[in-house]
Amino acid sequence: VTKRVIGIDVGGTTTKGGIVSSTGEIHDRAEIPTDQSAGTKGIIHVVEELLAKADSISAVGVGAAGFIDFPSGSVSFSPNVTYDDPHIRRALEARVDLPVVVDNDANAAAWGERAFGVVKGLQDVALLTLGTGVGSGLIAGGRLIRGSSGAGGEIGHTVVDHHGPPCRCGLRGCLEQMASGTAIARLASEAVERDPDSSILAFSQGEEITAQHVAKAAREMDETARRVLRSAGVWLGIGLSNVVNFLDPEAIVLGGQVVQAGEPYLGAARDTLVAMTQAQKRRAMRLDVSALGADAGIIGAGALALDLLEES
Amino acid sequence: VTKRVIGIDVGGTTTKGGIVSSTGEIHDRAEIPTDQSAGTKGIIHVVEELLAKADSISAVGVGAAGFIDFPSGSVSFSPNVTYDDPHIRRALEARVDLPVVVDNDANAAAWGERAFGVVKGLQDVALLTLGTGVGSGLIAGGRLIRGSSGAGGEIGHTVVDHHGPPCRCGLRGCLEQMASGTAIARLASEAVERDPDSSILAFSQGEEITAQHVAKAAREMDETARRVLRSAGVWLGIGLSNVVNFLDPEAIVLGGQVVQAGEPYLGAARDTLVAMTQAQKRRAMRLDVSALGADAGIIGAGALALDLLEES
Repeated sequence: VTKRVIGIDVGGTTTKGGIVSSTGEIHDRAEIPTDQSAGTKGIIHVVEELLAKADSISAVGVGAAGFIDFPSGSVSFSPNVTYDDPHIRRALEARVDLPVVVDNDANAAAWGERAFGVVKGLQDVALLTLGTGVGSGLIAGGRLIRGSSGAGGEIGHTVVDHHGPPCRCGLRGCLEQMASGTAIARLASEAVERDPDSSILAFSQGEEITAQHVAKAAREMDETARRVLRSAGVWLGIGLSNVVNFLDPEAIVLGGQVVQAGEPYLGAARDTLVAMTQAQKRRAMRLDVSALGADAGIIGAGALALDLLEES
Repeated sequence: VTKRVIGIDVGGTTTKGGIVSSTGEIHDRAEIPTDQSAGTKGIIHVVEELLAKADSISAVGVGAAGFIDFPSGSVSFSPNVTYDDPHIRRALEARVDLPVVVDNDANAAAWGERAFGVVKGLQDVALLTLGTGVGSGLIAGGRLIRGSSGAGGEIGHTVVDHHGPPCRCGLRGCLEQMASGTAIARLASEAVERDPDSSILAFSQGEEITAQHVAKAAREMDETARRVLRSAGVWLGIGLSNVVNFLDPEAIVLGGQVVQAGEPYLGAARDTLVAMTQAQKRRAMRLDVSALGADAGIIGAGALALDLLEES
């Protein structure tokens, strides 16, 4: 029997969902801008819109930004989205009369890559989503590392350079401050002061410099842009070497917009990781780019819902 | 029925074992110096000595230094002990006709604290053993993080300061280089050059300075010794904050000789960890000192053997 479920991905900007088949394809889709003060209402809205499009839905999975207690599906902390009802799972179950599972969004994305993506069936996997921040989901022995308060696997806030710049989390030199899109933009802003001829400035056209501007300039062989990307990539590699020492994974999957910054960034990360990893650990390890891309969250939330049906 | 098992702990210096009851007590004991070139023979020797002391032993558990593939019980890498037969489990099963389980020594120690020690029954726990190096075992969702090649949970080689001193593993500024007994000795050697009146030198009496000398001087309120211990403790706290971001544990357990360095070291680690951990994560978290001490490895290997009986 082919089951169909709903998968929902709640980020700071968009709450999006889809009807996910038991083979991991997305059929219908729906999305709304995330209402910063009513995250739970937004989830219910998208779920009901999808339910109206299809019958015979068996379960609902949600990957939501924030620390999510599992399996209760309650939010314990969420800096980017305010949930009007923190008991997301209970609120949804009251409305839709279907089994519901709620997990962290990065956990859902990692679970999606493991169920249907580039690391299908592997037991020990780390997924890092590189955007303005660094999100991550970790799988050890075929199970997500959820932690005691739903805050496990926060690689973005591991410190790689205690002398580094301050982070919004209160620490200094977190991986997020050293290797994310925000880090690339900061490094580029500093670099163009020393090199005002860099084509980074031609791409940013007086606006605030972003990682995208740097990536475009690097593609045109701007040496300053390439140096900035390599520098962020080296720090990413250092962070990944810590992931290897923690988890000893079979594969690390990199997703998120910043992955598109391309070779100077990913190449430096890969070289650094190889140089910093003992031969015994890197032998069987892969560094992959996400196969599901921006859909990893929806598909992963769907995969969690499919697992729920299997368990029951 | 009260089962009795054998637990073995193989370190770089000593191979020691005991008969472990189903309530985690050690009855008879046996130990030999670890033969650096014949680790597996040493294990068999201690097991046979213990078997001669007791009848009705139901299983054997071994915690062995090195990367140990689980559940095959084979060594994939071991810098400190050479195993004459790398297939430890198979070699033991051929000799003793009992169920055998083999895991990494730090994993066994963590499992012991979780089965019978200070974190009994908790689901998410990190144990760090602070000696000349930093060993560690991590438990997520009630299961050890073993990794894909038996090298999971190596907190000692996570980088906390990329500008730090080089480590034997090839990296720079690993937690082990910043916060272990070796780190304390190195910091103290530098500090006494600036302060030749420190009582650290009175305790070391011309020998090479060790963490023990520093701890003794600190107990007599030598300010240089206290500053050295606080400095290493701050780095330990930074490393522990990374453990929290990775694992979100209910408790972190500190064991090993260096824990006896006392308040300036542990106090600085605790203060740093609290300052560096978001309120949401530290709310329910404890920092404990090992209850089983030097016996954690034997008792933990015994606990793994008891689990083996329960599964079958």
